[in-house]
Amino acid sequence: MKNTIRIALDAMGGDHGPNVVVAAAAIALERRPDIVFTLYGDSKAIAPLLAAHPALASQSSVVHCDVAIKMTDKPSQALRSGRRSSSMWMAIDAVKKGEADCAVSAGNTGALMAMAKVCLRTMAAIERPAIAAMWPTLRGESIVLDVGATIGADAEHLIDLAIMGAAMARIVFDIESPSVGLLNVGVEEIKGIEEVKAAGRVLRETALPNMRYHGFVEGDDLGKGTVDVIVTEGFAGNIALKTAEGTAKQIGQYIRDAINHSWMSRLGYLFARSAFRALAEKMDPGRVNGGVFLGLDGVVIKSHGGADAAGYAGAIEVGYDMVRQELLAKIREMIAQANEARAPAAAPAAS
Amino acid sequence: MKNTIRIALDAMGGDHGPNVVVAAAAIALERRPDIVFTLYGDSKAIAPLLAAHPALASQSSVVHCDVAIKMTDKPSQALRSGRRSSSMWMAIDAVKKGEADCAVSAGNTGALMAMAKVCLRTMAAIERPAIAAMWPTLRGESIVLDVGATIGADAEHLIDLAIMGAAMARIVFDIESPSVGLLNVGVEEIKGIEEVKAAGRVLRETALPNMRYHGFVEGDDLGKGTVDVIVTEGFAGNIALKTAEGTAKQIGQYIRDAINHSWMSRLGYLFARSAFRALAEKMDPGRVNGGVFLGLDGVVIKSHGGADAAGYAGAIEVGYDMVRQELLAKIREMIAQANEARAPAAAPAAS
Repeated sequence: MKNTIRIALDAMGGDHGPNVVVAAAAIALERRPDIVFTLYGDSKAIAPLLAAHPALASQSSVVHCDVAIKMTDKPSQALRSGRRSSSMWMAIDAVKKGEADCAVSAGNTGALMAMAKVCLRTMAAIERPAIAAMWPTLRGESIVLDVGATIGADAEHLIDLAIMGAAMARIVFDIESPSVGLLNVGVEEIKGIEEVKAAGRVLRETALPNMRYHGFVEGDDLGKGTVDVIVTEGFAGNIALKTAEGTAKQIGQYIRDAINHSWMSRLGYLFARSAFRALAEKMDPGRVNGGVFLGLDGVVIKSHGGADAAGYAGAIEVGYDMVRQELLAKIREMIAQANEARAPAAAPAAS
Repeated sequence: MKNTIRIALDAMGGDHGPNVVVAAAAIALERRPDIVFTLYGDSKAIAPLLAAHPALASQSSVVHCDVAIKMTDKPSQALRSGRRSSSMWMAIDAVKKGEADCAVSAGNTGALMAMAKVCLRTMAAIERPAIAAMWPTLRGESIVLDVGATIGADAEHLIDLAIMGAAMARIVFDIESPSVGLLNVGVEEIKGIEEVKAAGRVLRETALPNMRYHGFVEGDDLGKGTVDVIVTEGFAGNIALKTAEGTAKQIGQYIRDAINHSWMSRLGYLFARSAFRALAEKMDPGRVNGGVFLGLDGVVIKSHGGADAAGYAGAIEVGYDMVRQELLAKIREMIAQANEARAPAAAPAAS
């Protein structure tokens, strides 16, 4: 077991920058005392913040960077202006160089993925990366991937997603064989796009270890928490994620309207205040924070841009867990098992 | 203007069958006295129900059918067992034969679309059909299509969807030039799948009459009501629809949990009861009922299977409006306009 986990933080990413990042690192360190941080960003802004957290300061070093990627930068712009020089790039590059075990950023997703792809490249057996999101459900949480890293997926990529999602689920949910479903427009075998059906056939016929293939699931299974891991191509996954976020916001507005409906309803709210606080917390999109970039030769975690210190600390801890429990090794092992399990079909053994 | 609108009802479709269908027809007739109904189904079940509504009975005829398509029948099964003989088929066939102006069914969507395709076929200029759903938004309602009729779409099909959706929006929202957005994973021109980008270029460059092309929209624009019509391919559209329904149910459960949280919150609920009723109504998936099948050579409306009489009446009225305001003629006219507008690019005029 590693003595410490070394985490590289892009201190300039997100809506709040170093304020939130430093406060979050302090929270994470209290719960995971075996972290060592390197903060990348404007050292003049970071130093006084760090000085307020002596315990954190003693476990941290700061690397000054002149360039900060903006939330509005397009991926191509970010690569042009920030390659090698930005806090985002340098945090990722620390992972590449083996100076850090994982990088965390709340910067813009497109730029972060573009830089991570260029800097870290994909793992040997994986062609294209994915972003896995934690999805709050009625039964707890599920992992949904890909929520937008890669547009379009053939059957092989969907199988890779299933394997990577299962590897992550084993860590996040601490279970040996997470259930995995393929997102489709119906649960019957004959429905949906060819790629999804083909991936379904392989997953059903190849009983992979460390994964229970459930079959197809539909959009409403996301909120139900029918399976631990829901696999879909990045276009549909991104639309599903944003549709759910939009629907939650829309209903949040309906609830505020209902509360403000009359003096009676406002009075009712006063009585039910603590229940409403619990509700608001459940509906907070930052509650389950930390998108995991999968398929890359290194661990990169994306925090919500608007996350507060507690939310960002959650993303740091996701990164910690992925490193401590060896996400990359688990993925490599499961990919090897899958290749082995599928080999007999391709080349029947002589008997 | 036609004197009466002739509506064919599949009396056996839906979770509640003729009970709800007959009650709904009575409600619709009160508001639209110029409807004449033909009810297809088990005449023994329908007759006594109809007897309780003399006004409706005088405007209705019943055609007995022995076969009722089950909600669980697969489309292929439904076609095998119910072609020519089922209430669902016969209601659609009445439109085909010119005996009815539109068919309404709460039966299973897959079977209804399969039968409608086989019986009515697509319109001359349209290759593949679509299902348009009404989507409740913070600004009222939007039309979203395709929510699952056709899997996969090239740019031409997406343009057809935009035209058909705009034609429907002109009727439903009573506006001359509805705004139309293409669902994508980002709002920038360079993002997303090729087909969506290509459709966007055509819609932007060809300023079609009776439509304002807005550009790309994302999943969270659905709930915001950013545009009147949101166009997407059937796989992503179906996933978005079911994800939103699932999220609404999930939050509905959170709200019930919040109310039952403590005696204080239950007391609060009593004060806010009328506000909560308004909220429950807004979150009722049957509130906006009536999926419109587009691209077929005839008008077919799908009611929610679980709709009550008021909900089903809404679906009947959607059908009425589509016929009265000549949906099919509007689509044909807009397709012709689009072909004309795009022709110069293909064959420059001699000058």
